[in-house]
Amino acid sequence: MTTTSPTGSSPLSEFSLIDRFFARATRQGEHVTLGIGDDCALLRPPAGEQLAISSDMLVEGRHFFADVDPRTLGHKTLAVNLSDLAAMGARPLGFTLALALPDSDPAWLGPFAQGLAELADRYECPLIGGDTTRGPRNLCVTVFGSVPGVQALRRDAAQPGDDLWISGTLGDARLALGALRGEWTLVDSELALARRAMDVPEPQIALGLALRGVARAALDISDGLLGDLGHILARSGMSAHIDVDALPRSALLAAQSPDIQRLCTLAGGDDYQLCFSADAAQRGRIEAIGNQLGIRVTRIGTIALPDARRTMLHLHDNTGASVAADFKSFDHFQ
Amino acid sequence: MTTTSPTGSSPLSEFSLIDRFFARATRQGEHVTLGIGDDCALLRPPAGEQLAISSDMLVEGRHFFADVDPRTLGHKTLAVNLSDLAAMGARPLGFTLALALPDSDPAWLGPFAQGLAELADRYECPLIGGDTTRGPRNLCVTVFGSVPGVQALRRDAAQPGDDLWISGTLGDARLALGALRGEWTLVDSELALARRAMDVPEPQIALGLALRGVARAALDISDGLLGDLGHILARSGMSAHIDVDALPRSALLAAQSPDIQRLCTLAGGDDYQLCFSADAAQRGRIEAIGNQLGIRVTRIGTIALPDARRTMLHLHDNTGASVAADFKSFDHFQ
Repeated sequence: MTTTSPTGSSPLSEFSLIDRFFARATRQGEHVTLGIGDDCALLRPPAGEQLAISSDMLVEGRHFFADVDPRTLGHKTLAVNLSDLAAMGARPLGFTLALALPDSDPAWLGPFAQGLAELADRYECPLIGGDTTRGPRNLCVTVFGSVPGVQALRRDAAQPGDDLWISGTLGDARLALGALRGEWTLVDSELALARRAMDVPEPQIALGLALRGVARAALDISDGLLGDLGHILARSGMSAHIDVDALPRSALLAAQSPDIQRLCTLAGGDDYQLCFSADAAQRGRIEAIGNQLGIRVTRIGTIALPDARRTMLHLHDNTGASVAADFKSFDHFQ
Repeated sequence: MTTTSPTGSSPLSEFSLIDRFFARATRQGEHVTLGIGDDCALLRPPAGEQLAISSDMLVEGRHFFADVDPRTLGHKTLAVNLSDLAAMGARPLGFTLALALPDSDPAWLGPFAQGLAELADRYECPLIGGDTTRGPRNLCVTVFGSVPGVQALRRDAAQPGDDLWISGTLGDARLALGALRGEWTLVDSELALARRAMDVPEPQIALGLALRGVARAALDISDGLLGDLGHILARSGMSAHIDVDALPRSALLAAQSPDIQRLCTLAGGDDYQLCFSADAAQRGRIEAIGNQLGIRVTRIGTIALPDARRTMLHLHDNTGASVAADFKSFDHFQ
């Protein structure tokens, strides 16, 4: 909550900026004993639980386009962090926001703060502190949640024979990005639909909480299924067999060419769905959770011990024929 | 711990970068049950204590010069955050680091990580997570400490009649900055001394811990005494009477002109000393703490109820004559 200025240029008026734009996101939470305005915020986690902590930094021109709607950007800035809590099975407690801005334009800050506050309200995850400074636009959120230590959904917990599951559908965000880049074309109504998946992802908090004690390993898919699943496999010392035709996709994506479908589901990005492993005995329970939450859950493969060649990923199609598991082989469009 | 790339440009290789450069800063702490490499880190605070949390964002060209020694920058990036824990009376538990870098130059990252790790080791405050991405250089640290809730040194706790204290000396960092800007001149050996205060501040963690249950209000001075003290006064609903000639300064600063001394002690910046209030009955104890820790502690004034005109700051010199309490009046050099 301090703004240092050795180069002497005056910082944005930190307190008035927070008062004016971020008051709505700062409502005191049940576990926030001291919010914005002191050297530190004070947080009291539920007794016996652990703090789950994640940081993400979003840079203009890299993680978002300069002309993106600031309200959807406010949503996404918090959503990608909440998604990390979801992947751990953690309940949101609060977040800090450090932001560098080229100016303090109310026409940008107002909707940005609104998008942030709407999502913060919805998940009872108040803004508890942060920092503001002038600089190239950069948004850094650190989010805090709580989880009973033994129920945390870690990446290193997959076991041989586990089913592999995916929530929701994969690939719509990548479908939008490809159209915006001119890799392929979509009609306007299709692009609007796909772009919504890219701009306004929904963190799977309720599913993460429901999977405590049910799933073993879990993570959120932000960089594409193949790359992210690799983290579970590496940390668990396991391999996986995946049916690429079983990967859940929207009707919009299912209407595209097979190449585009493969690329977007396997090597997309910005999906923010959960990929998790669970004992086969949990199938009924996981399907019931999906029904109860209204979230599609799809079994896409199984976890196995590594073979002698230590190949981690084995992909096949719905005929059983082997498919190359090379990340780059799905990105013909780069 | 996720790196999203909707614009499709590949991120820095996050895991290899962390493995190569930041392994030393990531040693597991006593309260860190899961460190880098999962969706979230897991932290178990000491039973019955609260989490103290602070975020600071440092931007190149604003908070540090582009050509600053990366090792001292690594130190300072963590030090300014630890200083916020010190000001709360909190014990460090760990920190996250999100960094945007224009490139992954080992000649910069190596010493930066070294400066960070040396300070992290010294305060048993391990790196527990974060994010890396390409972008204009930006360093965002979020630091976590623990403190028994009732002993937290808050800004809103000053009482009428409290003494006001300052640790260490004020103004050397501003003295260096002015010389670098050409506002005044220092000989090389003087500049080197002053610059060390600016580049390698020491967070007053031990003092903050010793002041639990002894001090009432506290904060760290990062933006200059007058501005920062104003936060204690505003949040406590109090005013302060300060003897500007009692402000502690180094021999180097005391050898400068009276104007430079006033500017640097009252409206400097980057001091990272603690300013705290305490009941007059605690004088002996505070002096004993200072002696024991080898830290200079200086009484600079008193807290009072606001007068009818609600003037918060009353400055006087050592003859008792009133001095204008206008922040800008001390900055003739801007």
